[in-house]
Amino acid sequence: MRLARLGERGAEVPVVLDRGKARDLRPVIADIDGAVLSPEGLVRIRSAVASGALPELPDADGLRIGSPLARPGTIVCIGQNYAAHAAESGSAPPEWPIVFFKSPNAVSGPNDPLPIPPGATTVDWEVELGVVIGTRAWQLDSPAASADHIAGYVLADDVSERTWQRDESGGQWGKGKSAPGFCPLGPWLATADELDATNVRLRSFVDGQPRQDSTTADLIFPVAHLVHHLSHYLALEPGDLLLTGTPEGVALSGRFPYLAVGDVLELEIDGLGRQRQELVAS
Amino acid sequence: MRLARLGERGAEVPVVLDRGKARDLRPVIADIDGAVLSPEGLVRIRSAVASGALPELPDADGLRIGSPLARPGTIVCIGQNYAAHAAESGSAPPEWPIVFFKSPNAVSGPNDPLPIPPGATTVDWEVELGVVIGTRAWQLDSPAASADHIAGYVLADDVSERTWQRDESGGQWGKGKSAPGFCPLGPWLATADELDATNVRLRSFVDGQPRQDSTTADLIFPVAHLVHHLSHYLALEPGDLLLTGTPEGVALSGRFPYLAVGDVLELEIDGLGRQRQELVAS
Repeated sequence: MRLARLGERGAEVPVVLDRGKARDLRPVIADIDGAVLSPEGLVRIRSAVASGALPELPDADGLRIGSPLARPGTIVCIGQNYAAHAAESGSAPPEWPIVFFKSPNAVSGPNDPLPIPPGATTVDWEVELGVVIGTRAWQLDSPAASADHIAGYVLADDVSERTWQRDESGGQWGKGKSAPGFCPLGPWLATADELDATNVRLRSFVDGQPRQDSTTADLIFPVAHLVHHLSHYLALEPGDLLLTGTPEGVALSGRFPYLAVGDVLELEIDGLGRQRQELVAS
Repeated sequence: MRLARLGERGAEVPVVLDRGKARDLRPVIADIDGAVLSPEGLVRIRSAVASGALPELPDADGLRIGSPLARPGTIVCIGQNYAAHAAESGSAPPEWPIVFFKSPNAVSGPNDPLPIPPGATTVDWEVELGVVIGTRAWQLDSPAASADHIAGYVLADDVSERTWQRDESGGQWGKGKSAPGFCPLGPWLATADELDATNVRLRSFVDGQPRQDSTTADLIFPVAHLVHHLSHYLALEPGDLLLTGTPEGVALSGRFPYLAVGDVLELEIDGLGRQRQELVAS
């Protein structure tokens, strides 16, 4: 099942994408957030879809696509989780998952213009598989137990300002990860049954030229391992979002220029759709 | 004006503390969150108090005290913002504010028991002045402009697991800051007119023995500077919480043992009340 939110920012309508149609979910839910991503909540949505009673949202093709998750409670990010990306960042592969956070204030739609904040000169892209939590996860027994806590997956761009991330915060990364528009999500949230998260291809492009091209099979710490591991440090709550790390091929490597006004950034994960962000002045 | 939330977790009633009485705010607001902390929202609450029409909440003294902020959108933390604490942590005073984030999942009431998570051996205290944002702050012109964006202040304990913070996350601190109960807030939120944030005394005690004793006059980056500075890296939103850093006197210094089951931790900021946390097994 694919869930999305369509319409202007702050007024998005929750929909389910059903055989080429966007069906309005407002008869069953107010929005797509932690409260409806539990197994019970998803069953309720599935039943409504199966009933055939959900109205089609008119003119859906012309609407802006919003983040498919109304507002993640916490955005947990994993750093250097692909060996080749750790290497291009000048680091050895980590021994433990490196955890940092991104402010949910940064969330935007998948195709919204991406503003370069005043003073920013090193804005970089990071295509990532996002994991959406459906059931509270605390002190899980094993990586296998993670599956019971995952509602679904989403394509994410963990936009980063490298100078702010690395040079202006005593080495704490979050400062360069949270400007407005720095977390495009979507176009849709795919429920967990739709995706084999152990092997999906991720790609990014700048002005049509390939940048990143990898698969989650190369993750140092795979999704199930991450959810289990994190649950021993914090309680993941329904509606929380886990960004699993980015593969090699970012500007930080020195192989490509940083983003500039007018550039067009595209990101893609098989089964999770495609994003397109035009870089604009703030 | 002092705002609080009283009652069991998840069912707290918003109140205003008015000359020794807790007056029920439910006739005017649903909860204390970003939506009501704008200047207009606070005027509405003040008018309701002045009208004398708010009912007294019965048996308020016997109720649990919850976090006075329903759920911060983002918790932005500043590291090593007192010179003596930077020194006891083995660091030089920072050149820029060090920014990291704490998951809002960690928020608890000021006197709730504090669970030591399984495997944690280095749980530490950090008394901090918390700044609550009332109006969106992005690209502020000057530190003086910060005042227009601050709704009020709150006493906070930035509880930290030092091994998780320093050794198990590649140097990224958030991993040791976000376990359940690691962010006691309250007992009340004081509106900005109640407090001179440039010089308030902060103290902490373990089993009645003094640990931290300092004043915000010793902040390397004062509150107004922080809000201005942060607004150039992320947009602070209404209901966001800024923890301004902790003074010297924590266990990390090596001068005191880390917290253990049965310890009683107390924290105090003049004008913002007192917290009491008993350490318990998770």
